[in-house]
Amino acid sequence: MSKLITLQTPLDMHLHLRDAQMLQLVAPLTAKTFSGALVMPNLVPPVTTKEALLAYKQRICNAAGDEKFEPYMTLFFQHYSYDFLKEVKEHIIGIKLYPAGITTNSETGVSSLDSETLRPTLEAMSELGIPLCVHGETNGFVMDREKEFMPIYASLAEAFPKLKIIMEHITTKAAVDLLDKYDNLFATITVQHLLITLDDVAGGMLKPHLFCKPIAKRYEDRSALQKVALSAHPKVMFGSDSAPHPKHKKESCGCAAGVFTAPIALQILAQFFDKYKSLENLQAFISDNALNIYGITPPKKEVTLIQKEFIVPQSYDNFGETVVPMYAGETITWSIVE
Amino acid sequence: MSKLITLQTPLDMHLHLRDAQMLQLVAPLTAKTFSGALVMPNLVPPVTTKEALLAYKQRICNAAGDEKFEPYMTLFFQHYSYDFLKEVKEHIIGIKLYPAGITTNSETGVSSLDSETLRPTLEAMSELGIPLCVHGETNGFVMDREKEFMPIYASLAEAFPKLKIIMEHITTKAAVDLLDKYDNLFATITVQHLLITLDDVAGGMLKPHLFCKPIAKRYEDRSALQKVALSAHPKVMFGSDSAPHPKHKKESCGCAAGVFTAPIALQILAQFFDKYKSLENLQAFISDNALNIYGITPPKKEVTLIQKEFIVPQSYDNFGETVVPMYAGETITWSIVE
Repeated sequence: MSKLITLQTPLDMHLHLRDAQMLQLVAPLTAKTFSGALVMPNLVPPVTTKEALLAYKQRICNAAGDEKFEPYMTLFFQHYSYDFLKEVKEHIIGIKLYPAGITTNSETGVSSLDSETLRPTLEAMSELGIPLCVHGETNGFVMDREKEFMPIYASLAEAFPKLKIIMEHITTKAAVDLLDKYDNLFATITVQHLLITLDDVAGGMLKPHLFCKPIAKRYEDRSALQKVALSAHPKVMFGSDSAPHPKHKKESCGCAAGVFTAPIALQILAQFFDKYKSLENLQAFISDNALNIYGITPPKKEVTLIQKEFIVPQSYDNFGETVVPMYAGETITWSIVE
Repeated sequence: MSKLITLQTPLDMHLHLRDAQMLQLVAPLTAKTFSGALVMPNLVPPVTTKEALLAYKQRICNAAGDEKFEPYMTLFFQHYSYDFLKEVKEHIIGIKLYPAGITTNSETGVSSLDSETLRPTLEAMSELGIPLCVHGETNGFVMDREKEFMPIYASLAEAFPKLKIIMEHITTKAAVDLLDKYDNLFATITVQHLLITLDDVAGGMLKPHLFCKPIAKRYEDRSALQKVALSAHPKVMFGSDSAPHPKHKKESCGCAAGVFTAPIALQILAQFFDKYKSLENLQAFISDNALNIYGITPPKKEVTLIQKEFIVPQSYDNFGETVVPMYAGETITWSIVE
């Protein structure tokens, strides 16, 4: 008899939904199987006002259609006033900080990560209970960028002990090691960083659809990530960082960073947790930990997965957009029961 | 007044010319500015017989046209007999060893690199004075593969002290450090590994046209390579490893390894050596060292370069093939005087 697992209120705590036609294409794919998702604000221009935030949320809800799905909105980090943050607090789940120029659409990010420079805004966030989500990479050598960022995480965690700081899409043993050193540090982990290393991206053929930032690292890094995910470490949440780019921008002479996993993440995670005999911990990773960390109450949704082969589509196409998912054309051994 | 440099008998001691239409396209581009080139034998099937060798050489000469150009032929390493090697010696400059499956068309390469397993053939080569050219990578983590191969180089160099061993397309400080430890170790260095690191391949956008094997490494590795090239280290030769792939195989969901530099290598090298005030050492790197190491007498050719802007073509197209060069569309500050 095939194995089954039913997940309650699956959450994707790090998601790119983009805008316009791409939003139309990808929002329903997430809304179908997730109760909610933390939505990245790195549009062009980035989401920095209440008006832009509410309008974007409305566009997401429209695109998601009739599904029970809550987009948890974020602002793009800037120096915001206490009064502004107080006014906008009920509409956001956190604020996303990007070092300037570090990834897609982050040109207007933060150029100084000094705690004192950031203090007015971070203190206001701390008082108001607004979490800080961080893309933690320096502008150093590509394999060292996340590790080099650890002292910045440490100094922020120390300087603002009541501020919840989420180390987004961690990829290194260094980040895993830091997680338990500060009560107010948390982390999201993607599907791809649980499964691949740089060998998969560039060890055989070069694979643009596995290229993302932070780039996949070494085997010992992957092992560290696997360990905390599979053991349902309470400070670790699933965040897909699913980042759709049009096919022609991935398969070109300069390929944009981002792996598209939204419609296949749950199937891959079920296969992965099952492989390591940890299926019972998937509920914590996919939802419970996030509920505890963020204190949210998403719309109820049950998703049942079955151990049955599923062939990943070569692409998802609609509204004039074409996006190639991770593992396009390959077979996953778990499927969603429709 | 613009600076000038005239190079005598430029040599490319590691070159992929492929076959059929691709050979027709790329052979003239090398023959135009190089006196000779050491030609890789990794065709499908690989070059392993005298007949295949001579026929391939003839096809190269035909494709190269009227230019004074000597293709220095190599055999694909197998266990060859002394008698065979003696017979074929006058037609080859060396034998190229590929660990099985390590790069393009290397599936039939060597599966054991143990000195004793290789002894019969390597001893024959040693007696006959046939150099061994090696693609030195293990099947380990992509950033470690060359470094992990160093003990194999060391054991081969020790076991066969009269065998000239060329560490092909070295990319690491580890290989540079090994170079002077054994009299019979030599090395080729490509244009791209003098100029780029993994940051250029995957630190911003992912750049398929800068993806090759061995992959570009760290800044300290690049510095070590630059130092021996710019100082005209006598055991180091230029070998472009120029490796054309059709454009559609580079800009795709699985990009083949290889950087195409043949028609722009001299211009880039002049710019690079000039930038580091080492133009006077380019002659040794581009020809004299190879003449000494291999004891060859290529057809005489003078190539004059001038400090004048040259815009790299977006692609080279002919015979139904399209190949994108390194730095397509970018400007190099040195040109060849036609």
